[in-house]
Amino acid sequence: MSRPVITLTTDFGQMDGYVGAMKGVILSICPQADLVDISHLIRPQDVRQAAYVLSTAVAYFPPGTVHLVVVDPGVGSQRRPVAVRTERATYVGPDNGVFGLALTLDPARQAVHLTGEGYRLPSVSATFHGRDIFAPAAAHLASGVALVDVGEVLALSELVELPIVAPLPRPGGGWRCEIVHVDRFGNLITNFRLPSPRQRLKVRAGGRRIEEISHTFADAAPGELVAYTGSSEYLEIAVREGSAASILAMDIGDAIEVEVAP
Amino acid sequence: MSRPVITLTTDFGQMDGYVGAMKGVILSICPQADLVDISHLIRPQDVRQAAYVLSTAVAYFPPGTVHLVVVDPGVGSQRRPVAVRTERATYVGPDNGVFGLALTLDPARQAVHLTGEGYRLPSVSATFHGRDIFAPAAAHLASGVALVDVGEVLALSELVELPIVAPLPRPGGGWRCEIVHVDRFGNLITNFRLPSPRQRLKVRAGGRRIEEISHTFADAAPGELVAYTGSSEYLEIAVREGSAASILAMDIGDAIEVEVAP
Amino acid sequence: MSRPVITLTTDFGQMDGYVGAMKGVILSICPQADLVDISHLIRPQDVRQAAYVLSTAVAYFPPGTVHLVVVDPGVGSQRRPVAVRTERATYVGPDNGVFGLALTLDPARQAVHLTGEGYRLPSVSATFHGRDIFAPAAAHLASGVALVDVGEVLALSELVELPIVAPLPRPGGGWRCEIVHVDRFGNLITNFRLPSPRQRLKVRAGGRRIEEISHTFADAAPGELVAYTGSSEYLEIAVREGSAASILAMDIGDAIEVEVAP
Repeated sequence: MSRPVITLTTDFGQMDGYVGAMKGVILSICPQADLVDISHLIRPQDVRQAAYVLSTAVAYFPPGTVHLVVVDPGVGSQRRPVAVRTERATYVGPDNGVFGLALTLDPARQAVHLTGEGYRLPSVSATFHGRDIFAPAAAHLASGVALVDVGEVLALSELVELPIVAPLPRPGGGWRCEIVHVDRFGNLITNFRLPSPRQRLKVRAGGRRIEEISHTFADAAPGELVAYTGSSEYLEIAVREGSAASILAMDIGDAIEVEVAP
Repeated sequence: MSRPVITLTTDFGQMDGYVGAMKGVILSICPQADLVDISHLIRPQDVRQAAYVLSTAVAYFPPGTVHLVVVDPGVGSQRRPVAVRTERATYVGPDNGVFGLALTLDPARQAVHLTGEGYRLPSVSATFHGRDIFAPAAAHLASGVALVDVGEVLALSELVELPIVAPLPRPGGGWRCEIVHVDRFGNLITNFRLPSPRQRLKVRAGGRRIEEISHTFADAAPGELVAYTGSSEYLEIAVREGSAASILAMDIGDAIEVEVAP
Repeated sequence: MSRPVITLTTDFGQMDGYVGAMKGVILSICPQADLVDISHLIRPQDVRQAAYVLSTAVAYFPPGTVHLVVVDPGVGSQRRPVAVRTERATYVGPDNGVFGLALTLDPARQAVHLTGEGYRLPSVSATFHGRDIFAPAAAHLASGVALVDVGEVLALSELVELPIVAPLPRPGGGWRCEIVHVDRFGNLITNFRLPSPRQRLKVRAGGRRIEEISHTFADAAPGELVAYTGSSEYLEIAVREGSAASILAMDIGDAIEVEVAP
């Protein structure tokens, strides 16, 4: 029998003992769990970045995987701890929309408010629900506990929605889109999914113009700016053998214009 | 049967092949081991920080876990390689006090000097005992080899003690405590455990005064300084949605004053 | 039965979902795989650094380990995806020489061009062969699929060789060697293997002279420059309790002179 997979996505960094404590909690409850880190370097409390990074990875995991996500600016406040089940997976974390992009690809079917006393640590701290509530819930769910046993059923409409910024149509045609993530290479990943069949498009970013959408960044010469469809299907801006983020001085939240060529 | 858990805490960083080499050694000896990283980003050779980070995580691991710790400024000198067994766990690493804080929560019961020739790599380098001595010892112990077989028994009183700095009582009342760790969020974690029942306390840090101890940092407004009991029971100073370390320009080793309100 | 080990070495960093997606792909194909990260912090597209880091770790893994390496400046171009089998291991990645140093220790016996349609994801992106080609191939090979089934056999002479820079003999005696890696501690690792029996050697680095080769950096006083044989058998330059890279202002690619004392 294969082991249940639990992924972890947090903004805890990798320096502290926080992630280790969560993994210890999980293995104490579900020793057969196979733990996989997605990222612990989400920018502190950046729910949207976490939502994006999570959405690029979840489709590749085996059915039944439990995705534990702790990017939780509201810890200690009244925000709900939840678990959400889809056809392929179970998501565990704060109810702040962080699962939002993943759920657009694999919709929610059932959700619970994590209230079950027997499925959290005996003493719950005010600041570390990742360890005290979310890790135990994920471990129990991975062990086969039924979703309805770990909390009270919520209507799906009660879940907090991610404030996703969609590309805005521009008055003269085209779209104004936004950078949602900057990856390690300095590639700028936008919220823009290219239309198909593809129109002739140009891109304006940081005062520079890119005359066409390429197939891949390998189409560009070293040092050249290039726009292409990234591995997650969104429009990306890169510099071959360089960092578009540095060269354009752009970051998450900045606008990029897509124009339709005449 | 569940797999033996081995945790790893080092100052090796995550860029080099050092941690990978240690894991290869472990899996060659104990293929069923379940390896969990606690941190590899301890500041180079900072034994006290390693002791703190380790102490925040170990209580959450299953009984029988082996904790491998390699923060080892004395590698290549005469410091002893040791293994220490407690009721709940086994610690493997250099005898420099790095287990000290963990052992205050779960006391040492037996210790050995890792001298057993059959339980280290055939060739031991001068600079990488993590790979050549500690990883093999941890793997053999996780495989079920008896503690007394991997080395010579040491009296517990022979173990090097961690130079822990305890909070100092101040002449006018209160305590002078010290920052022992700065976490990823810039939260300042002190060596001060709050007295219970809690007195009315004020905190002075970096020229700023905090008028009370809050329940959690969520009690503060964004940007506001807040003092509270952290998830490891120590006094912490944070700035909600900000970095107390940056705003106060404070780091490990700096002093924080706790005053008793009149 | 022990689980097949797959190691991962990439330049993807740890912030993004790229490594998580690869691990999801692997566990979907080979759920029993034991995944071990060697490094994801290789400098972007630095094939030589990846080759060095990989070579320091692979010898310590169990026989049969699959080493997946994705440092791939040529993704999207015509470079071949390959798998290479040695006596001890299987390497999977781009054919750009990244396995070169590892193969000097454990020579290639058989290689294939990864062309098998059934052993990659159904849809292959232009930019992320780590996820779409290399991870599936590694997982199938770890599951026991025969090497010749995942692609077309290549003559070993067809594999791209790593442009290794060997130390150059100097006109007046000694060698001009090169820094191939700077580790977390700021230690400078060169491409120079010390001759044995050891001659009396001096080192010149960054305008400073080191009068002898020490046994280990613990032989130096704190703050002092020291040259010694590192844990991977190459000449290293370090500063005890400091960073040689900072103090000498040296980096990968810089030259270090080794002189034979008269």
